[in-house]
Amino acid sequence: MSLDPSRMAPMANAIRALSMDAVQAANSGHPGMPMGMADVATVLWSKYLKFDPSAPNWADRDRFVLSAGHGSMLIYSLLHLSGYAKPTIDDIRNFRQLGYPCAGHPENFLLDGVECTTGPLGQGVAMAVGMAIAERQLNAHFGDDLVSHRTWAIAGDGCLMEGINHEAIGLAGHLKLGQLIVLWDDNNITIDGQADLSTSEDVRTRHTSAGWHVVSCDGHDIADISRAIEEAMADDRPSLVACKTIIGKGAPNKQGTSATHGAPLGPDEIAAARETLGWDHEPFVVPEDIMADWQTTGHRGVEAHSEWKSRLESSDKQDEFKARMGNVGDAAGRAIEDHIRGLAAEPQKVATRKASEMALGPLTEALPQMIGGSADLTGSNNTKTPSTLPFSADDYSGRYLYYGIREFGMAAAMNGMALHGGVVPYGGTFLIFSDYCRNAIRLSALQEVGAIYVMTHDSIGLGEDGPTHQPVEQVMSLRLVPNLNVYRPCDTIETAECWTLALQTPNTPSILALSRQGLPQMRGQDDGEWTSVTNRSAKGAYRLKGADAERKVVLVATGSEVHLGAEVASELEAQGIGADVVSMPCTELFDAQDAAYRSDLLPADTLKVSIEAGASFGWERYTGLDGLNIGIDRFGASAPAGDLFKKFGFTADAIVPQIVNKLNG
Amino acid sequence: MSLDPSRMAPMANAIRALSMDAVQAANSGHPGMPMGMADVATVLWSKYLKFDPSAPNWADRDRFVLSAGHGSMLIYSLLHLSGYAKPTIDDIRNFRQLGYPCAGHPENFLLDGVECTTGPLGQGVAMAVGMAIAERQLNAHFGDDLVSHRTWAIAGDGCLMEGINHEAIGLAGHLKLGQLIVLWDDNNITIDGQADLSTSEDVRTRHTSAGWHVVSCDGHDIADISRAIEEAMADDRPSLVACKTIIGKGAPNKQGTSATHGAPLGPDEIAAARETLGWDHEPFVVPEDIMADWQTTGHRGVEAHSEWKSRLESSDKQDEFKARMGNVGDAAGRAIEDHIRGLAAEPQKVATRKASEMALGPLTEALPQMIGGSADLTGSNNTKTPSTLPFSADDYSGRYLYYGIREFGMAAAMNGMALHGGVVPYGGTFLIFSDYCRNAIRLSALQEVGAIYVMTHDSIGLGEDGPTHQPVEQVMSLRLVPNLNVYRPCDTIETAECWTLALQTPNTPSILALSRQGLPQMRGQDDGEWTSVTNRSAKGAYRLKGADAERKVVLVATGSEVHLGAEVASELEAQGIGADVVSMPCTELFDAQDAAYRSDLLPADTLKVSIEAGASFGWERYTGLDGLNIGIDRFGASAPAGDLFKKFGFTADAIVPQIVNKLNG
Repeated sequence: MSLDPSRMAPMANAIRALSMDAVQAANSGHPGMPMGMADVATVLWSKYLKFDPSAPNWADRDRFVLSAGHGSMLIYSLLHLSGYAKPTIDDIRNFRQLGYPCAGHPENFLLDGVECTTGPLGQGVAMAVGMAIAERQLNAHFGDDLVSHRTWAIAGDGCLMEGINHEAIGLAGHLKLGQLIVLWDDNNITIDGQADLSTSEDVRTRHTSAGWHVVSCDGHDIADISRAIEEAMADDRPSLVACKTIIGKGAPNKQGTSATHGAPLGPDEIAAARETLGWDHEPFVVPEDIMADWQTTGHRGVEAHSEWKSRLESSDKQDEFKARMGNVGDAAGRAIEDHIRGLAAEPQKVATRKASEMALGPLTEALPQMIGGSADLTGSNNTKTPSTLPFSADDYSGRYLYYGIREFGMAAAMNGMALHGGVVPYGGTFLIFSDYCRNAIRLSALQEVGAIYVMTHDSIGLGEDGPTHQPVEQVMSLRLVPNLNVYRPCDTIETAECWTLALQTPNTPSILALSRQGLPQMRGQDDGEWTSVTNRSAKGAYRLKGADAERKVVLVATGSEVHLGAEVASELEAQGIGADVVSMPCTELFDAQDAAYRSDLLPADTLKVSIEAGASFGWERYTGLDGLNIGIDRFGASAPAGDLFKKFGFTADAIVPQIVNKLNG
Repeated sequence: MSLDPSRMAPMANAIRALSMDAVQAANSGHPGMPMGMADVATVLWSKYLKFDPSAPNWADRDRFVLSAGHGSMLIYSLLHLSGYAKPTIDDIRNFRQLGYPCAGHPENFLLDGVECTTGPLGQGVAMAVGMAIAERQLNAHFGDDLVSHRTWAIAGDGCLMEGINHEAIGLAGHLKLGQLIVLWDDNNITIDGQADLSTSEDVRTRHTSAGWHVVSCDGHDIADISRAIEEAMADDRPSLVACKTIIGKGAPNKQGTSATHGAPLGPDEIAAARETLGWDHEPFVVPEDIMADWQTTGHRGVEAHSEWKSRLESSDKQDEFKARMGNVGDAAGRAIEDHIRGLAAEPQKVATRKASEMALGPLTEALPQMIGGSADLTGSNNTKTPSTLPFSADDYSGRYLYYGIREFGMAAAMNGMALHGGVVPYGGTFLIFSDYCRNAIRLSALQEVGAIYVMTHDSIGLGEDGPTHQPVEQVMSLRLVPNLNVYRPCDTIETAECWTLALQTPNTPSILALSRQGLPQMRGQDDGEWTSVTNRSAKGAYRLKGADAERKVVLVATGSEVHLGAEVASELEAQGIGADVVSMPCTELFDAQDAAYRSDLLPADTLKVSIEAGASFGWERYTGLDGLNIGIDRFGASAPAGDLFKKFGFTADAIVPQIVNKLNG
């Protein structure tokens, strides 16, 4: 099966030629990295990577992550050359053009074989950590026969310099993820120039201090690359393979400089590179013999895939395995029914973070896919359940990750786990620290994965910890992220409903914004026969209570302010002013309803009042400019929650007169 | 001057007593850290820290940063005991209560001596790095006589585990900031339990691999602490002093466990601790002799301060030094006049990132306080000018930082520099990576410092790099942060105006959201005599062009969409439909105008249309529900900018018919 090493140099040059030509055609892009890492990638794909181009989503394939995503032409070249259906050569000719899948940075939703969307530096490695976690977790249950693959990542200096790298390698080293191998493109070049303009770090020692195995090689010497990769594969720690490379290798005048990093080489340098590489073929033409060599690289994987299928078919865990790889939405709806019906019968006043824990009980019991965790706030986020035992280096069968104080690393790992498949990750931190992992949340949304963020302590209601810890703008600002559902439930039942919805959107991530403080149960009367079909949160907003007197006001509230809305309504009714109370746990779902539903809930001719203990900017969408927006447009303060709600005007006494004035004015 | 070491134990116990009693009184807080680090802090303040309690803002004081901000009772105790006017014992009794300065986490705007707001983990150390940078930069110019002080930080396991720590120590090590000393509270406890639940890292080796000096000590042995600190002071690298401590030291049954971390000890354990510590005083009572010892700790600093004042008075740089410590707003306004008047005479079509560079030319030439930098995107952010030479370990006189691929570390360092005083930091990255440093931007706002973020590539207009790099929600989401001005200028002149405004708000940070692509100059006609007083951007929005025909429409646009707004207006006018064009470079400043100005610009009875290539959510504030919001509520795509603007409907051809329909409908 193995290729003659001497045939790998032209194979690598095919990557170089496609990369420089595609970047030139697009007149933008990054040729330096693909040209520098062409040899390493060729060795990896030819000799070690387990993949089947005809079945790119085979569950037991190796995962390959191009963490240095700006070098996207590397992976497009690899996928094309090794026989994936896409990208075609026409796709590559149209690199970075509208309607074609070869985007500036690799997008998992555009091409099979692109395991994750990369480009935001550092996150690829962190997602690879998550993939390696998922692999070990499934392996612990299904065994080597069904689950045993490696995760590979190519990372540049930028990936290693980003803070998230510290979190990612710390977690991987602690968990002894020996199936994870990071190939470092050690070229000493960043955009601003030589890397030593901004760093003096000993990268190798930093990795060993985090529990990693480190091996170095000449990234342009086929045999040396093989030796290093084999050493990495043999070690039971996660490995860093430091590949000494020359950025833009092959471009005789520009190689080794930042000039090759992020701009086309230009026609003259490309001509010179063709000369240097001995590549006399037209742009986008790969000779048949080289193409044929590339097509053999997938053969090992095709064979392995076939053997795996036989093992799966004869396995007594076949059905379970297939079920594990499927969606959990329906099962989630069934698993939560008794819990909600129980709450309908016996209402409970608890914080919604506690309500979340209560919902997680039956959900994690019924759904083995669910893997929880917290960034060192387990007891505060209420994320651990009896079904989720610790996942550790000593026991990969666990379903609970102590992520440590690593919010960004956690979120990116969750993305990797979700992308891997077979697991549904949820993880907790304080809502304020969504700021720390915000771009990973964005990548959940962009990559269309159903990661679930349990974000507690969601307003000034957390009290004494003060403004550094009190979200003011976070709820609203997260609502702005496309394809992200932000839930802010008001009580035990809404919390359970929102959990169910979060599990029912495998292609949309969810944020659960939950209170620290106890909240009265607002729901229950009509929930004795609750099913997924009656899930009132599913429309994003609903009329919790209709006006008794003639309706003059609609109060729209979320989360911990819904019970306040009900108090305000009740005082208004006492004055003969009819008021609806609308609970709006998810604006995104509400916005997706038809106009009739929306205008029935928020009629044009009625005073609409929003109540949310956060930024008021945005609420005009629901109240219009002639409504009232009760919000907080400054930082919070440190004091007991009750004092703060009073100070910031979140009491019926403070709100009712404003409404009455407005009605009279 | 030196205290007898044997007298330090009771001094440290005073910290322990105040901390456990205050947390108990508040019924919330973190006693473990102050009790664990009491000995280290006592040694530091008694023997090494240079401070003058009667002049807390003395420019040449040492800076003390409590990075582990949850242990806030440590700094409140230190400030109170050592003779600062605040906090009083009554303030401490009212720890975490409304209206008192002893907040749950230390807030720089509530107490002198609190150099920065901490609590969001990791950022304290990163701000300390910025302070140490500012100190060296000023030292290079003003010499040891006027500027020579250390920066100290106390950090916990959490601070070191956060990703930002990697960025901060990498930068500090690279820049050889020998005046920076981090005291690590090495207690092996995090909230979830033993630190080794989530980490196996060799912290010491990681620091040495980043170019740090590391020394260890027994954090409860006065002599050993002194030895370690003195070794750290003698080394010319930044130092990590690993202080082996017992969390909650003194609480006999709970010390050494996470039970002391974030909850009151309870009356019984407090009684037991009093016994153990030999502390038989009432809560909040510190005996006179111990108080007297504490009051002597500031004497060294008072003396040093007096000597420093003499040196300043006899220095030929006295005036320059005082000017350097002052505000730059007026000078900025004058420095930019000729530039803007020149643009009025000779309009230029350039990207606003280039316009920013053009404005930075005269500004950085006139204002030595300005220190620029970029997170490895110097050529893309256009942040470097001829006046800003590199700041490096070899030359601290430079004014330009190659921050490396460390957005979060950069932003936090900028906060530290701004808090230090004498420098005005600005730093660049792509706007999308505001996500990476978002909480540091929030801390700029919360801490009321005038850091300036140069955030380029501000929309789909960046083109081919695709959705990972195209901000959609970032501009709007940053507008939600309290006390943060987000500027999105439309051309060369607005960019210069916004730069001036950013420099004129020393207590409010600014974001400059700038285009990658070239934009026509919209302004100039009335700017031939431009001064700060005529700065039209100062009101946040203004009528760029009034309607010719009877006004039916007001187009409100920002940044790269303003010229599109003008095109739309012109096509509407061609159909006899009068249309104003309002440029709104800063919504925050516009919202602060009086109702008359706002309604004059956005009259109630006219169709209002917002045009911004980003999230539309929020624009209802300016258009009402019966307006039109032209925005992007999905992720972008990879393609040339022109193709994308067309695809997403940002052309006059796409917008004009929508307006006409709306007017007719």
